Amino acid sequence: MDIKEEYKDLLDHISLDCVVFGFHENQLKVLLLRMKHTKEWALPGGFVREAESMEVAASRVLKERTGINDIFLRQFHVFSDPERAKRNQAVPDVIESGLIFPDLAWFNQRFISVGFYALVEFSHVHPQPDLLSDLCEWVGLDEPGTLILDHNQILEKALETLRLQLTFQPVGYNLLPEKFTMPELQKLYETILGKELDRRNFQRKMLAYNILTKLDEVKPGVAHKAPHLYKFNLENYRKALEEGLSGRW
Amino acid sequence: MDIKEEYKDLLDHISLDCVVFGFHENQLKVLLLRMKHTKEWALPGGFVREAESMEVAASRVLKERTGINDIFLRQFHVFSDPERAKRNQAVPDVIESGLIFPDLAWFNQRFISVGFYALVEFSHVHPQPDLLSDLCEWVGLDEPGTLILDHNQILEKALETLRLQLTFQPVGYNLLPEKFTMPELQKLYETILGKELDRRNFQRKMLAYNILTKLDEVKPGVAHKAPHLYKFNLENYRKALEEGLSGRW
Repeated sequence: MDIKEEYKDLLDHISLDCVVFGFHENQLKVLLLRMKHTKEWALPGGFVREAESMEVAASRVLKERTGINDIFLRQFHVFSDPERAKRNQAVPDVIESGLIFPDLAWFNQRFISVGFYALVEFSHVHPQPDLLSDLCEWVGLDEPGTLILDHNQILEKALETLRLQLTFQPVGYNLLPEKFTMPELQKLYETILGKELDRRNFQRKMLAYNILTKLDEVKPGVAHKAPHLYKFNLENYRKALEEGLSGRW
Repeated sequence: MDIKEEYKDLLDHISLDCVVFGFHENQLKVLLLRMKHTKEWALPGGFVREAESMEVAASRVLKERTGINDIFLRQFHVFSDPERAKRNQAVPDVIESGLIFPDLAWFNQRFISVGFYALVEFSHVHPQPDLLSDLCEWVGLDEPGTLILDHNQILEKALETLRLQLTFQPVGYNLLPEKFTMPELQKLYETILGKELDRRNFQRKMLAYNILTKLDEVKPGVAHKAPHLYKFNLENYRKALEEGLSGRW
């Protein structure tokens, strides 16, 4: 599909930005794009076609960037500061991409952006740059630096949302492999929260939520005192997503 | 301001709808408008001016409908089904309002709507209809009937959000008067949850959250065994809003 086709039936003023979280080597990472011309980094994002809902548009964008269908994603906030998009930052890339003037004007209008976060299993993702970028890569949460536009704020708000959710909803399914150890789950929580947790308290609290099934298997490839494997009890997990973990009235 | 002035610098494709909750006579109520021509009921809503963020636009709309400045409001969801707005439902009212054709076409475009909920102290509100409506009234949550467009869905999602928040965040400030009794607070929770709660459990749980200050006063005008008055400890309340009530890691 050429660029003009791509931009043909997009709605004015509405965009989306995606914060894609993946967990790898005990670290929470986020998927970023490097803009072709300016070499600045950005969150993956896109626009909305006439026939699409926001969710369908976000799924399409993420399928293009990750290769994954049916990615787990959720709206978390609308970013609508009238000054948020100094779009001319991106203009050199738009010009380099071969977009002609009417499209550039379109590109420079004010956009209100719906933020989505996505949780993906790291190993399933095949990162793909978009028309305006030359790289698509996983970056550790401590190293994104200064992103374009208000993308640092969008990333921070996504993290904040995830942190608050840890206090009342289960998190981990979609981020961890099907079978995982308690230390791996704890490490995931620790990287989201940005702090260390007590091992015994963590285990006690997680088990009390009744969302884990302890398997009759240990972690393969560990010679001595190999940790047990767990998986999520999806029925209880989904119930906890709907009703909240602990505070049920 | 005449109508053309009002619609002059609005962004295409973006609207907002507000679910305004108030608590009165032990019942949770929602503010609705009655459309002039069709007599159908609708949530208060509006559009976004070029210089406004979504939040500023929502505050402006709610100031017009309620008379209240600095209303407590929060985004909760973006409604973007391409089929959501069969806007021609509202056309008779638009015509009656004196809008000319270009504005009607504008009015009939696809809108993606950002849902806000607002919590207000009932007694502070002075309901005002907008250009397209002849009534603005409080309606009990059990009696809204069929609203226009997807407004029933927006209302239901707002309630769902509030219910989930009860499990991890304090709710009540902005809805209750400054001083209130434990039975009044319980009744608020019961109307949001749509079920009765055990009195002693409720009190124990609420007190454990450490967000209430028991006052050295009883409810005035109650002859016998007048219940104690409480107010929120705003410092702890705000902390609980940020960190979650019970599940802190």
